[in-house]
Amino acid sequence: MADNLPLPVRVRVTASPSLALLKYWGKEKSGINIPATSSIAVTLSGLETVTEISTDFNQDGKSSAGDQIIINDEPVSDPKIELFLRYARDQYPLPSQLTIRSRNNFPTSAGLASSSSGFAALAAGLGAYIRPALSGIELSALARAGSGSACRAVFGGFTRWIRGSEYAVPVYDHTYWEDLRILLILVTRQPKSTGSRSAMNHCSQTSPVFSSWIRENHRHEEMMLAGLQNRDLEQLGAAMRQSYLFMFSTMFTADPPVIYWLPESMAVIRACEKLRRNGLNVWETMDAGPQVKLLCQESETGRIVEELEKEIGPFEYRLSRPGLPPAVETCFD
Amino acid sequence: MADNLPLPVRVRVTASPSLALLKYWGKEKSGINIPATSSIAVTLSGLETVTEISTDFNQDGKSSAGDQIIINDEPVSDPKIELFLRYARDQYPLPSQLTIRSRNNFPTSAGLASSSSGFAALAAGLGAYIRPALSGIELSALARAGSGSACRAVFGGFTRWIRGSEYAVPVYDHTYWEDLRILLILVTRQPKSTGSRSAMNHCSQTSPVFSSWIRENHRHEEMMLAGLQNRDLEQLGAAMRQSYLFMFSTMFTADPPVIYWLPESMAVIRACEKLRRNGLNVWETMDAGPQVKLLCQESETGRIVEELEKEIGPFEYRLSRPGLPPAVETCFD
Repeated sequence: MADNLPLPVRVRVTASPSLALLKYWGKEKSGINIPATSSIAVTLSGLETVTEISTDFNQDGKSSAGDQIIINDEPVSDPKIELFLRYARDQYPLPSQLTIRSRNNFPTSAGLASSSSGFAALAAGLGAYIRPALSGIELSALARAGSGSACRAVFGGFTRWIRGSEYAVPVYDHTYWEDLRILLILVTRQPKSTGSRSAMNHCSQTSPVFSSWIRENHRHEEMMLAGLQNRDLEQLGAAMRQSYLFMFSTMFTADPPVIYWLPESMAVIRACEKLRRNGLNVWETMDAGPQVKLLCQESETGRIVEELEKEIGPFEYRLSRPGLPPAVETCFD
Repeated sequence: MADNLPLPVRVRVTASPSLALLKYWGKEKSGINIPATSSIAVTLSGLETVTEISTDFNQDGKSSAGDQIIINDEPVSDPKIELFLRYARDQYPLPSQLTIRSRNNFPTSAGLASSSSGFAALAAGLGAYIRPALSGIELSALARAGSGSACRAVFGGFTRWIRGSEYAVPVYDHTYWEDLRILLILVTRQPKSTGSRSAMNHCSQTSPVFSSWIRENHRHEEMMLAGLQNRDLEQLGAAMRQSYLFMFSTMFTADPPVIYWLPESMAVIRACEKLRRNGLNVWETMDAGPQVKLLCQESETGRIVEELEKEIGPFEYRLSRPGLPPAVETCFD
């Protein structure tokens, strides 16, 4: 987008969530969402947040004061979004009143990283009103202020967010690992009980293994970068498992303990173990929520779904692959 | 038993398993089963190992060489028991040939501490052949050589085994906390996949949080001793939860990770959380196996079983309370 373009009247952004293979869990004390751990992630094709931002309020003849936020067709008052808009306006000249409509084609707040795609879409949408246009890194830093993991979701493919950094960087694009698939198992559509922000803070403040978690993140990161570089699913998967199981161990050892796992999550974890024993190359991870995400190869996906069904019964899932960066459409009249 | 009694021809011991409320998980490098963590346990009424030891081989006219071991009616060759008998004979003069028949009235090797009652019964049975008679502490030290937790199961009621110690000590007898109940939920009758000995060693060798686990055991122990002293189920229960969840965190962070939980275990854990939110005083713990054990008060037991059934469906369970020490019957002709 050239810097001399006029400002748009409406912007429409489609963004996909960022699934951490190496987990972001813990913040540094200073700054907004500065991670204490490096994370490595993949942007998930097919799962989409669509966010429309417009400045044309008076279409219905009313003049409204302040921003309007509509999520999944519900007008909401969302403190996280309001705080983020205040932050963005402090950093950049932006219209003083915006209407923001956002909708996910997947369950919100159920542990599918909806806040990463949500804030990535919002940041990219605001970016359309900023002159000169933001670089990828500036956009990533802006998105991060809304939700840490959103800084990765402004890029497609594989991304890396290094501990202590204000922004993520792209590592490999969505074409790098053609036959990698991500199987998202929806064990529930219920929103999770505890938000991940407060759980993260609770763990970093009360878990006696938190410093060890931070230390081990360096080792997990090396393993995972090697796995990615070699396109070695087994190496990547083993590192991914160590990362998520350690993250959950910071929750189990928090005071009081935090438990996100459901019986259905455990069923998938155990079934995955069995499938691996039977020679299938399939590796699970989880986030601060009950859903389980599996990494596998395209060629084995059908058999994995079939074998999983034998183990746990019928289940709902989405099949994804490394996805594209956010798409931005602007409208000037 | 007076020290001038003749040696018995047959001995029959009934012993109950020891459930650790504060977990024994990790050994010191020197010695046999010297614990790196203190444990606090309760002996479980109603669950029984019955072990008969006899020296009258020639009843069927045959002379057999060596010991005969029969467990749950199956003649077995059990290296743990054979090693233990060798150890016992090194320590004490014992008959050179013994027939040992042992039987559990509860599932064996399924995570119900069958090895604690098994080796407590065996040690107490051998004790009947030892002159002068062993003190409780000597008996505890002997049982420990068979299985660490067995050193607690030679006593009834509440017991404590202090880190670094060769024997356990009784803390309160079985009458101390009259209305305490232990609800043992049998989520499976399958033997567990990995023995707890090898898992314990694997975790102590590969988990980066193992040293933190040992350190925190001191804090958990203080909390639990206070809970026991006050007969405060909430205080005891919170310490018990911290202990078992941390123990499992050493498994999740081991390399490769070890997972004992089944979906059904997780269902009970989550249901327990819900029952507590609804005002019931019920606290779960688990051992290196899939079963879940709940502590509660006698007055709430009925309602807890009912509410649990609503959450997880019908289930098999045993209701237990603090139990008696092993009972020894001797026969001299």
